[in-house]
Amino acid sequence: MLITSADNPKVKLWEKLKQKKYRDEARLFLVEEKHLIEEALKANKVETLIIRDSLTNPFEMDAIKVSDNVMKKISNNTSLNDYIAVCNFLDVQEIKGNSFIVLENVQDPGNVGTIIRTAYSFGYDAVYLNESCASIYNHKTIQATQGALFHIPLIIKDTGESIEYLRSNSVRIIGTSLNTNNYLSKSNKYEKFALVYGNEGQGLTSETQMQCDEVVKIEMKNFDSLNVAIAMAISSYYYKF
Amino acid sequence: MLITSADNPKVKLWEKLKQKKYRDEARLFLVEEKHLIEEALKANKVETLIIRDSLTNPFEMDAIKVSDNVMKKISNNTSLNDYIAVCNFLDVQEIKGNSFIVLENVQDPGNVGTIIRTAYSFGYDAVYLNESCASIYNHKTIQATQGALFHIPLIIKDTGESIEYLRSNSVRIIGTSLNTNNYLSKSNKYEKFALVYGNEGQGLTSETQMQCDEVVKIEMKNFDSLNVAIAMAISSYYYKF
Repeated sequence: MLITSADNPKVKLWEKLKQKKYRDEARLFLVEEKHLIEEALKANKVETLIIRDSLTNPFEMDAIKVSDNVMKKISNNTSLNDYIAVCNFLDVQEIKGNSFIVLENVQDPGNVGTIIRTAYSFGYDAVYLNESCASIYNHKTIQATQGALFHIPLIIKDTGESIEYLRSNSVRIIGTSLNTNNYLSKSNKYEKFALVYGNEGQGLTSETQMQCDEVVKIEMKNFDSLNVAIAMAISSYYYKF
Repeated sequence: MLITSADNPKVKLWEKLKQKKYRDEARLFLVEEKHLIEEALKANKVETLIIRDSLTNPFEMDAIKVSDNVMKKISNNTSLNDYIAVCNFLDVQEIKGNSFIVLENVQDPGNVGTIIRTAYSFGYDAVYLNESCASIYNHKTIQATQGALFHIPLIIKDTGESIEYLRSNSVRIIGTSLNTNNYLSKSNKYEKFALVYGNEGQGLTSETQMQCDEVVKIEMKNFDSLNVAIAMAISSYYYKF
């Protein structure tokens, strides 16, 4: 099958998937790089594979071929993509486990994606995100995960509810904040724990801080300024290894 | 002074500063956000301050006013800037100290900037970068430093030479790699040390690895994949605290 018209109804649908509203409606999202598409295929998440007309298909799945003008129209990149996969939304049930990441209002897709990648690399069991976090289906988030989003459960849920659920499973809730003298490198480690991170500018809401069993601070020498993905990496490593 | 013509020679110079070639020639670079400009002022690095005609000057330095079309022309942002500072290049002499970061071929400006921010927050004494790293004067680098670049010495130098210089000052040289069983959380700490990080895709060159006194690996459970700014954050925290 070859599509050359940008007015083709399929093309119009795919193009709309750049917007959250239409992704949520269709429960589909776009994945735009070869190695990320390979991760999506491993996870059995690809609904439709789209490749440029001039290329041979390197994947073990049938593809729809499209002309370059169509490929440009669908893509989020300014340079011309060779492949795009239309993927099904990730369905996850609440899972059991020992270690969790909870994100509240983390708004930069690069940060959300990097945190998902780090969480998966360190063997965390799930990442909870509230609705105000950057979308896990944003192309910048997907890119930053390096494919990890296909392999670790991602649960979209109000932060308060996530914490309550975790606590009811005997999970220690550990928040991060600049306003404490409880330093990370001196803090106790637990078998079952969740680490909670807040917005890039504001940090955790006071409501969420009050729900934590403990709040820790990462030691710093000069200005008190760490990117949230950096803070997450340091503390998630500390508690795990 | 008010400039309204995009053909004004000053405007043409400022616009050229978006390109590395012209920055290196003029030894000037642009800083585009209010809080970053404040850091540049504290460091006494602002050569010319430019503000939109319609605004009052919030800084304690005289400014040139420009019309919106001129501001748009100079800026790297798609949205209209309120202020831009033209800054002098950072001059640094080789300094003494106890803890250093060395970057070889780290190409993403966001990564270079984040690493500079983290290094400053943790009290490292300098960051060495080779010529193949993303420019410290790239606007994305500057943004990611959150102003830290004005406060920590940044030394542009061949990686081999940086390591030789540091070693001659009794600094332990510690590289990072995926190909070792020497795990970070088990490794010894030193009073004087430098941490060396390589390219996002390739890691350290084998030449540089051979120059290290020791190579460590950050423990991971699932896929061996951490962003370089994340790897730097974890290990620079470990050795410091």
